[in-house]
Amino acid sequence: MITLYDITGKPPIKTGSPNVWKTRYVLNYKKLPHKTIFVEFPDIEDELKKAGIPPSGKKPDGVTPHYTCPSIIDDATGAVVSDSYKIAEYLDKAYPDTPKLFPPGTEALQAAFYDHFPQVLAPLWPIVLPRVPRVVMDERSAEHYIRMYSERFGMPLAQMEPVGEERVAAWAKVKAGFGQLDGWLSKSSGPFIMGDTVTFVDFVVASTLHSLRTLFGENSEEWRDIDGWNDGRWAGILKNLKEYASVEI
Amino acid sequence: MITLYDITGKPPIKTGSPNVWKTRYVLNYKKLPHKTIFVEFPDIEDELKKAGIPPSGKKPDGVTPHYTCPSIIDDATGAVVSDSYKIAEYLDKAYPDTPKLFPPGTEALQAAFYDHFPQVLAPLWPIVLPRVPRVVMDERSAEHYIRMYSERFGMPLAQMEPVGEERVAAWAKVKAGFGQLDGWLSKSSGPFIMGDTVTFVDFVVASTLHSLRTLFGENSEEWRDIDGWNDGRWAGILKNLKEYASVEI
Repeated sequence: MITLYDITGKPPIKTGSPNVWKTRYVLNYKKLPHKTIFVEFPDIEDELKKAGIPPSGKKPDGVTPHYTCPSIIDDATGAVVSDSYKIAEYLDKAYPDTPKLFPPGTEALQAAFYDHFPQVLAPLWPIVLPRVPRVVMDERSAEHYIRMYSERFGMPLAQMEPVGEERVAAWAKVKAGFGQLDGWLSKSSGPFIMGDTVTFVDFVVASTLHSLRTLFGENSEEWRDIDGWNDGRWAGILKNLKEYASVEI
Repeated sequence: MITLYDITGKPPIKTGSPNVWKTRYVLNYKKLPHKTIFVEFPDIEDELKKAGIPPSGKKPDGVTPHYTCPSIIDDATGAVVSDSYKIAEYLDKAYPDTPKLFPPGTEALQAAFYDHFPQVLAPLWPIVLPRVPRVVMDERSAEHYIRMYSERFGMPLAQMEPVGEERVAAWAKVKAGFGQLDGWLSKSSGPFIMGDTVTFVDFVVASTLHSLRTLFGENSEEWRDIDGWNDGRWAGILKNLKEYASVEI
């Protein structure tokens, strides 16, 4: 049994973290039995340490260890792995009879895509980040989240969110980012990025979309906008991968 | 017979344009007979118009048609194609029995890589661009080039080139860019980006490397630096693709 560590979402939202969604999609795609442990945002470091999970990297200061979700514990092998990319690589190796996330030959191009993808949708973050504590978190977690990001950006998190004309301009940049992504994906001859084969990068894109839909709400103006762009490609991706989106508790 | 339009390089350099190198590699890889017509930099628009070749896009003003090398004329089909990416797509389609540059399923990931690659090596351009007219061009072409780029950047081109401590810092950024690229490529299990299969993106990377080696000179401090980074990966790429680097006149 694999244990997946996720960040608690305030009801009715179970789980909003795009990074954890990558691992959830991946575990379901490989049909690997797993259960989820939900941890409140301010408790991640303590809970992961207690479970014997190492940090996934350093905080922005370059020194302090950073404990993050997703992390997994695999009882079958004793492995403990943090970071959605490393988890995906681990699962391909540890379970060679399950469908490959990185078919041989595609590793380098997927790595490049993985690095580039967040840059293309970077205009989203000033709109999305201030929304996260309001929509996904309870009061204690929200306070912790707001304090952390306000310190990191040197301004109150809420001030990051563009309003009025600035928001219109920011949203146009978001649309342009999706347009660039669509330019690449439209080169594919199949429903997935690599044609008829599902690969890790499909789950990378789908996880962001899934979290955006949760965060804005399916009937929000924002999600209806996104749904209307690029011939319905974005909601289509979620539909194509829906069978791998179940939450195992 | 395919005619390839290239930009004249001042002797002993025949050809320095990284964009044209992509097409040269591709034609040699597909073993498609071709000849090269060299055009002086200020004459590109006139010569291409005269040959019936359309612009490849717009100049930075978004309005003026932009005539560029590489462009090809394919006598066998009557096709006239500009832009190295479009030429590669055209050749895959027009000559289906030659080795594919875009194996089915890889199109979208290659498109994403193609867009990302110049960003990763962006720190090179302030060092490289002012060097181009000095090393590769005769006096008339150099004057035209310097005027064009000085207008575009709103400062004398020579002033773009970092010197002293600034150059040391800029070169460290170049090294970091190569390091990021190496991080992706090291995921590949073969000599090429997609393992044992050559694809278009290999020629994209090799063309930049080939031009850098020409521009700096094989025995320059800069090329020796690059050659020493990332376990010799960069000179190794040129060596692996050397059989496709002949210049057909």
